[in-house]
Amino acid sequence: MKKLGSLEALSEALRRLPGVGPKSAQRMAYHLLQHDREGAAILGIALTHAVERIQHCASCNTFSESEVCETCLDAVRDTSLLCVVETPSDQMMIEQTMTYKGLYFVLMGRLSPLDGIGPKDIHLEKLVSRATDGKVQEVVLATNFTNEGEATAHYISETLKARGLRVSRLARGVPVGGELEYVDAGTIARAMLDRRTT
Amino acid sequence: MKKLGSLEALSEALRRLPGVGPKSAQRMAYHLLQHDREGAAILGIALTHAVERIQHCASCNTFSESEVCETCLDAVRDTSLLCVVETPSDQMMIEQTMTYKGLYFVLMGRLSPLDGIGPKDIHLEKLVSRATDGKVQEVVLATNFTNEGEATAHYISETLKARGLRVSRLARGVPVGGELEYVDAGTIARAMLDRRTT
Ligand SMILES: [Zn+2]
Ligand SMILES: [Zn+2]
Repeated sequence: MKKLGSLEALSEALRRLPGVGPKSAQRMAYHLLQHDREGAAILGIALTHAVERIQHCASCNTFSESEVCETCLDAVRDTSLLCVVETPSDQMMIEQTMTYKGLYFVLMGRLSPLDGIGPKDIHLEKLVSRATDGKVQEVVLATNFTNEGEATAHYISETLKARGLRVSRLARGVPVGGELEYVDAGTIARAMLDRRTT
Repeated sequence: MKKLGSLEALSEALRRLPGVGPKSAQRMAYHLLQHDREGAAILGIALTHAVERIQHCASCNTFSESEVCETCLDAVRDTSLLCVVETPSDQMMIEQTMTYKGLYFVLMGRLSPLDGIGPKDIHLEKLVSRATDGKVQEVVLATNFTNEGEATAHYISETLKARGLRVSRLARGVPVGGELEYVDAGTIARAMLDRRTT
């Protein structure tokens, strides 16, 4: 079996990918070597480059190839608003809504004590020093509305309010286009409590 | 978004893996960059090495880092027996049974006209020239007992018998430890037709 050194190394390495077990790692290795050597070479280079080049933006903490990312350098943005999201994908979703013109802070995670993910892992110190730069007036918490996202928002809110910052949270309610019949009771209850005068 | 060049390239490249769509490619990229940069670097190197080093054994067609693999070079093996399997994993399964001491030919696939996989894709010419080396007396077909595996076995059998070779097929029947109540009717029917005098 020593002859398979590179093949076994590849199968082993593919298991570092999330959700890939031994069977599918082997299937992936065989597929690449048999049917897509070009893809394997491209992926090899992409991984090496990404590890070499991608760091975290010194300002907003998202992935960036430069010390400060393009969004943070965008002179047109409102520096008094800072939106806190869990991931770069969440930031992208908010950007797509075209409703927000401030800056961001990307936690790269959420508090999850059961998984051993504490305040340090979501870069809370970096967020606090970012939010207290003297320009930020309001921090908009846009973590997910899951249990962990809510707990994260609560923790950050307490931390930042203690430093005199205004903190807000995305509104909860019935989704646009939502039919009450198909919306869960918790959402309807929240929408009722948060009802607005029209 | 130009700043994300390396990250986007990585997500794109991860989609070359079988069964990985855009969402999970992005999840994988984030995971590696955020939580396992060492794994990303290791996988990058493993892919590059594998593509550079792994070819097909000139004799049995399996993956090999040398021109002829160790199994084919093993002087203790019975050169009059050639077992045809679909994949290196299948070969490994047969090796583990310790019931076979001949050599192998690995098709690296199976006939599948619907997927456009024909005789050329399973290296039938290479198999024919291997099987007609003058030493091979019997070819044991150990392709899977699926529709495609059976069709492949049939096709190879016809091809090799036309060249005067003895061709056999793994026996079908009730699995060892199998309870008739839980074995499918087709298997029982086959076991009945192939019943042996004891
Ligand atoms: Zn930034
Ligand atoms: Zn070989």
